Amino acid sequence: MRDAYHEELDSISDSLVEMARLVGSAIGRATTAMLDADLNLAENVIAADEKVDDLQRDLETRAIQLLARQQPVATDLRIVVTSLRMSADLERSGDLAQHVAKVARLRFPASPVPRDLQATLLEMGQLAQRLMAKAGEVIITKDVDLALQLEQDDDKMDDLHRTLFQHLMDDRWQHGIETAVDVTLLGRYYERFADHAVSVARRVVYLVTGDYADELDGVATTDGTAPVESA
Amino acid sequence: MRDAYHEELDSISDSLVEMARLVGSAIGRATTAMLDADLNLAENVIAADEKVDDLQRDLETRAIQLLARQQPVATDLRIVVTSLRMSADLERSGDLAQHVAKVARLRFPASPVPRDLQATLLEMGQLAQRLMAKAGEVIITKDVDLALQLEQDDDKMDDLHRTLFQHLMDDRWQHGIETAVDVTLLGRYYERFADHAVSVARRVVYLVTGDYADELDGVATTDGTAPVESA
Repeated sequence: MRDAYHEELDSISDSLVEMARLVGSAIGRATTAMLDADLNLAENVIAADEKVDDLQRDLETRAIQLLARQQPVATDLRIVVTSLRMSADLERSGDLAQHVAKVARLRFPASPVPRDLQATLLEMGQLAQRLMAKAGEVIITKDVDLALQLEQDDDKMDDLHRTLFQHLMDDRWQHGIETAVDVTLLGRYYERFADHAVSVARRVVYLVTGDYADELDGVATTDGTAPVESA
Repeated sequence: MRDAYHEELDSISDSLVEMARLVGSAIGRATTAMLDADLNLAENVIAADEKVDDLQRDLETRAIQLLARQQPVATDLRIVVTSLRMSADLERSGDLAQHVAKVARLRFPASPVPRDLQATLLEMGQLAQRLMAKAGEVIITKDVDLALQLEQDDDKMDDLHRTLFQHLMDDRWQHGIETAVDVTLLGRYYERFADHAVSVARRVVYLVTGDYADELDGVATTDGTAPVESA
C-alpha cells in the first residue's frame, strides 16, 4: 500500500512539474508573440492552454482518489492538499500567459507594445519565465534557499511593473489610451503570473518547514496595487 | 464520530458563508468609498480584509484536521476538498475588494472615477455584491437553480465591463491616462470578483451534481480579455 501511495504521489508531483514547464514555456512564447506581433505563435499559446487545464483536472482527480484510497495523515496529507493548491496556481498562470497571447492576437498585425516599452516588457516576460522555471525546480528539489530566491525575483518584477507605470503616467506619453489600457493589463498579467510562481515556491517551503514565514505571507497580498500607488 | 464529523463540516460551511458575507460587504463599501472619495471607508475596507484572511487560514487548518481525523471518502471527501477551494476563491475576492479601496485611497480627495462612468461602476459594484450574496446563499441552500443564475449575472458583469472599455476606447475620452489606467484596473477587479463568486457557485453545483457542466466550465476561463477584444 505504501509503495502504491508513493508512486501515486510521485506521479502527482510529476504532473505539477510538467504544468510548470508548460506554463513557463507559454509565458515565454506569449511574450515573443506580443513583441514580434506573431499571430501564429499567439494562436499556438492560446490553443496550448487546454493541455494545462487537462493536466490540472486529471491531477485533481488523482489527488482525490489518493486521499480516498490511502487516507494519508500528517505530512503526507499536507502534501496532497498542497499539491491541489499548487495545481490551481499553475493553471491560473497558464490563463495569464493565454491572456498575454490574446492581447497580441487582438492587436495583430501591430504589436500592442510601443517601441520604448519593448525592453521593459521583454524583461518582465523573461523574468516571469525564469520564476516559473525556478518554481518547477523547487517542486523537484524542495530547495528552500531557491524558493527564497523567488521572493527576490518577484521584487524585481515589482520594480519593472513600477517602471511600466512611470512610463504610463509620464506627461510625455504619446501612445494614446488604447495602448495605455493594453500595457496596464499586460503589466498586471505578468505581475500576477510572478505571484503564482512565488506562491508555488512558498507552498513548498510550507511543506518543508511547516511554517508560513511572515515575510513570505506578505508577498501573497501585494499583487499589483503597489505600482499604481507609487506611480 | 459521525456526529463530530458533521459538526466540524457545518462549522467549515459556516466559515465559508461568513467569508462570503464579509467580502460581499467589502466590495459594497469599497465601491462607495471609490465613488464618494471616502478615505475613512476605504481604510476600513483595507484593514477589514485581515479578518477574511484569518478566517481562511483557520478554515484550512480545520479542513486538514478533519481529513486527518475523520478520513472521509466519496462525497464527504469532495465536500472538504471543495471547501478548501471555495475558501481560496473567497479570500481572493477579499483581496480584490481591498484593491478597489486602495485605488480610492490613492486618488483621495478625488474619486478615481470620472462623472460619466460613475453609474457604470456603481452598477458593477452592486452586481458584484449581489453575486457574492447569492454565492453565500448557494453555499447554504445548495440550490442549483440559484447557482445557474450567477452565470447570467456574470454575463451582465461582462456587458458592463465592455461598456467601460467602450468609454475608454472612445476618441472623445477626456480624462487622461492616469484615469484610464485606474478605470482599466477597477474594471478588472470587479470582473475577477464576479468570476470568483461564480466559481464558488459552480463548485457547489459540482458537489450536488458531480458534474462540471461544459458551459459552466467555459466561464472560468474567460476573465477580462473578452471586453478588450470586443472593444
